Amino acid sequence: MKCLDCGYELSELRQDIITCPSCGGLLEIKIEFPSEFDLRRLKGRGVWRYKDVIAGEYNKIVTLDEGNTPLIKSRKYDKTYFKFEGANPTGSFKDRGMTVAISSALSLNYKIVVAASTGNTAASAAAYSSRAGLKSFIVLPKGKVALGKLAQSILYGTVIIEVDGSFDIAMNSVMKLYRDHKIVYPLNSFNPWRLEGQKTIAYEIVEDIGVPDNVIVPVGNAGNIYAIWKGFNELLEGGLIDKVPRMIGIQAEGAAPIAKALEKGLEQPEFVDSPDTIASAIRIGKPVNWKKAIKAMKSSKGFAVYVSDNEIITAQQELARREGVGAEPASAAAYAGYLKLLSSKKIEESEKSVVILTGHALKDPDIMIKAEAKRILVNPEHIDQVILGDQI
Amino acid sequence: MKCLDCGYELSELRQDIITCPSCGGLLEIKIEFPSEFDLRRLKGRGVWRYKDVIAGEYNKIVTLDEGNTPLIKSRKYDKTYFKFEGANPTGSFKDRGMTVAISSALSLNYKIVVAASTGNTAASAAAYSSRAGLKSFIVLPKGKVALGKLAQSILYGTVIIEVDGSFDIAMNSVMKLYRDHKIVYPLNSFNPWRLEGQKTIAYEIVEDIGVPDNVIVPVGNAGNIYAIWKGFNELLEGGLIDKVPRMIGIQAEGAAPIAKALEKGLEQPEFVDSPDTIASAIRIGKPVNWKKAIKAMKSSKGFAVYVSDNEIITAQQELARREGVGAEPASAAAYAGYLKLLSSKKIEESEKSVVILTGHALKDPDIMIKAEAKRILVNPEHIDQVILGDQI
Repeated sequence: MKCLDCGYELSELRQDIITCPSCGGLLEIKIEFPSEFDLRRLKGRGVWRYKDVIAGEYNKIVTLDEGNTPLIKSRKYDKTYFKFEGANPTGSFKDRGMTVAISSALSLNYKIVVAASTGNTAASAAAYSSRAGLKSFIVLPKGKVALGKLAQSILYGTVIIEVDGSFDIAMNSVMKLYRDHKIVYPLNSFNPWRLEGQKTIAYEIVEDIGVPDNVIVPVGNAGNIYAIWKGFNELLEGGLIDKVPRMIGIQAEGAAPIAKALEKGLEQPEFVDSPDTIASAIRIGKPVNWKKAIKAMKSSKGFAVYVSDNEIITAQQELARREGVGAEPASAAAYAGYLKLLSSKKIEESEKSVVILTGHALKDPDIMIKAEAKRILVNPEHIDQVILGDQI
Repeated sequence: MKCLDCGYELSELRQDIITCPSCGGLLEIKIEFPSEFDLRRLKGRGVWRYKDVIAGEYNKIVTLDEGNTPLIKSRKYDKTYFKFEGANPTGSFKDRGMTVAISSALSLNYKIVVAASTGNTAASAAAYSSRAGLKSFIVLPKGKVALGKLAQSILYGTVIIEVDGSFDIAMNSVMKLYRDHKIVYPLNSFNPWRLEGQKTIAYEIVEDIGVPDNVIVPVGNAGNIYAIWKGFNELLEGGLIDKVPRMIGIQAEGAAPIAKALEKGLEQPEFVDSPDTIASAIRIGKPVNWKKAIKAMKSSKGFAVYVSDNEIITAQQELARREGVGAEPASAAAYAGYLKLLSSKKIEESEKSVVILTGHALKDPDIMIKAEAKRILVNPEHIDQVILGDQI
C-alpha cells in the first residue's frame, strides 16, 4: 500500500488500514497479480468471480449477486457499448464496491458503518449493511438527493443524518469522523478496499469484448474512473491484455473541478464551493479522489471534459428513445460527453468505446417525468381511433 | 398450438398467430424439445442463452441483455431464494418477454405495437420498441400507475393513452383493438410468444440450484406463473429434471379473483370490478390468463393465496431491512405470501423455495418513502455525537 499524498509505503496489505497512517491521505492498493490467473477458467458470476484478484481476506461475504451487468451494444454507433450498471441490485455501480467494503467491515469485526452520499452510496450502503446486520449511518446533503435514492435509504432502514449544504460538507464530516474515531468503518470511496470491488467493471468488459480504445466515465467524487483503470492496469501488468484504454472523465459544467483544471493545463483541480447540476450523483465540488482520477487519466493518455445540463437532458432522452437504455442524469452525462467528443473529433466512431452508465434512470423519476411526452386521455372505446388515426 | 378456450388445434407453430383463429381465445405454444439440449453446453447469457427452446424464428433480435438475474439466498431461511427480476434493464421481469415479443413483431414486419399496462409492461414495451424503431402505444389506467413506471414510459418516448378506470378496462380495449385490427402487434401477456421469454426464469433457476420444491409468484394478469411453469414443464418433458415445483400464486386481498375462487373450490375466478391494493402491478380484477394460471397451479399441485396490503408493506420492509433486497409492493406480496404459508404450515422452511420478485423497489418510490425512518438534521460538525452517542 502506498500513499498518494505523502509517499508513505507499507510493504504488506493491511486490510484494517484505510487511510495513510502517516498523513491520513489517499492509499493505493497494489495486488500481487496471481500468475495462474486465467479469464477462461473463472467460476461464478459478478464481483466475486474475480475474488483471486480482489485484495483482502474475507471470512464472510455479504453479497446480493452484484455485478455481471449488461454490456449493451449501441444501435447507432457500431463500435460503442453501454456498460449498464443500473442493473445492479440497488440500481448503481456502488454495489460492486459495497459488497467488498461491507464484507471487509464484517471480517474486521466492525459494528458501525458510515457513508456520506449524494444518494447512490446511501442506498447501497443501507442495503448491504442491513443484509450484514451492521448498524449504518448515512450523511446526506439535505434536499439534494434524488427521490429514488432517498426512498431506498428509508426502505432499507439506515439512520439518515441530513446536513445543510453540499455533498462535500457531508463528505468532510465523515472523513473527520473517521480520522477522530477509528471504530466507525467508512464506506466512501476514499476507502481503497471499496474500489477493489468497482475495478471488476474492467474485468467484465475485457471478458465480454476485450480491451476497448476508450472508456468514458462520469466523474463525481472521482473514485470510479480510477477503480476501472486499476482493473485494466492489473490485467495489463498480468500480461492478459496488451494495452489500457484511454480513461476519459466526464463532469457536469457546474461541478467540473477536474475537467476545468485539466483544460487549463493545471495539475490540480480548482475546487467548486457550490457545485450545481441536475446530475445529483456528480454534484460534487471537491472530489476526494482527484489525485487517483488524474493518475488514471494521465497514465492512460485520457482526459476530462464537461457537459452542460441541457446536454445531459438531451443525452438521457436520446439514450432512452434511440437505444432503449434508461440511465440517471449523471450516467447520461457520460453519453453526452461521448457525443461531444465525437463531434469535436477527440474520439472517433471507429474506435471501440465503452460508456459507463453508472445508475438506473429509476433513481431519479422527477427528471424523467419532465421529458416531453405524448399523453392523451381517451374513452377506452375509442383507442383505435388514436392508434390507427396516428398511423394514417 | 392449442386453444385453451375452444380446444382448436394447429399442428404447426405459426408465429403470426397470437390468439385462437377460431374463437379468439388463449393459445398455448408447445415446443418440440430438442433432444440434444444440454444445460451444460449453453452459450451466452440471459434470455437468448435459451434460444434453442424459444419457439419462433427471429431474423433480428432486439435485446438489452435482459434476464440472467440474481438468485439471492435468503439470510433468514436457509433453503429459500429470491429471484430478483428487478435487475432487468427496465427493472422488471417484463423485459424477458418483451425481447421476444418485440423481436417477433420486427421479424413479422409489424410497424405498430400496443400494450395495456399497470406500468411495468409500459416501461418495458416503450424501451424495447424504441430500441427496435417501432411506433408504440401504451394504454394506462389514469392516475393508477406508480411514479417510476409512468416516468419510464415518458422517458422512453412512447405514446401514452390514458383511460378512466381500472387496468382491466385498458386491457379490454387492447384486446378489442387486436381483434378488430390485426395490423397492430399486441405486447400483453395474452400473446403467448411473450411468455416464451418469461419461461426462461425457470431455466435459470434450474441452472443455478436445480428444481426447487416451491416457486412463489405474484399473480396479476396471471401470465407469469404459467410461463414459469411452462419452463419447468419443458425441462421435465425433455428429461432434464425429474419433477416440476409446486407453483404457488399470490394475489392481493383486494384483487384476488383467482385465490378467492380456489379457496372456495371453484373452477373459475370470481372477477373483481374495482380491484384495490397498494400493489399496483397486481391491481387486476379480471386476469386474462386465468385459465393458464389455474392449469399451472393444478398440474403442479400448487395453489393460490392472498395477502393484505398491511402484510405486503411489512414484507417489503422485512425484505429490505433483513435481506437487503428492494422489491416493489407486488413482489413483496410474494414474500408476504411465503411468510403466511410458512406460518400456516402449508409449506415448510426445510423445503427449497424460490420467491419471484418481479420488479424493483425503485418502481414505486412513493410507497418506499412512507416507511418509518430515522431522519435527523444535524450540524455537520456534530455528526460524531449522533453516531457515537447512538452506540453508547
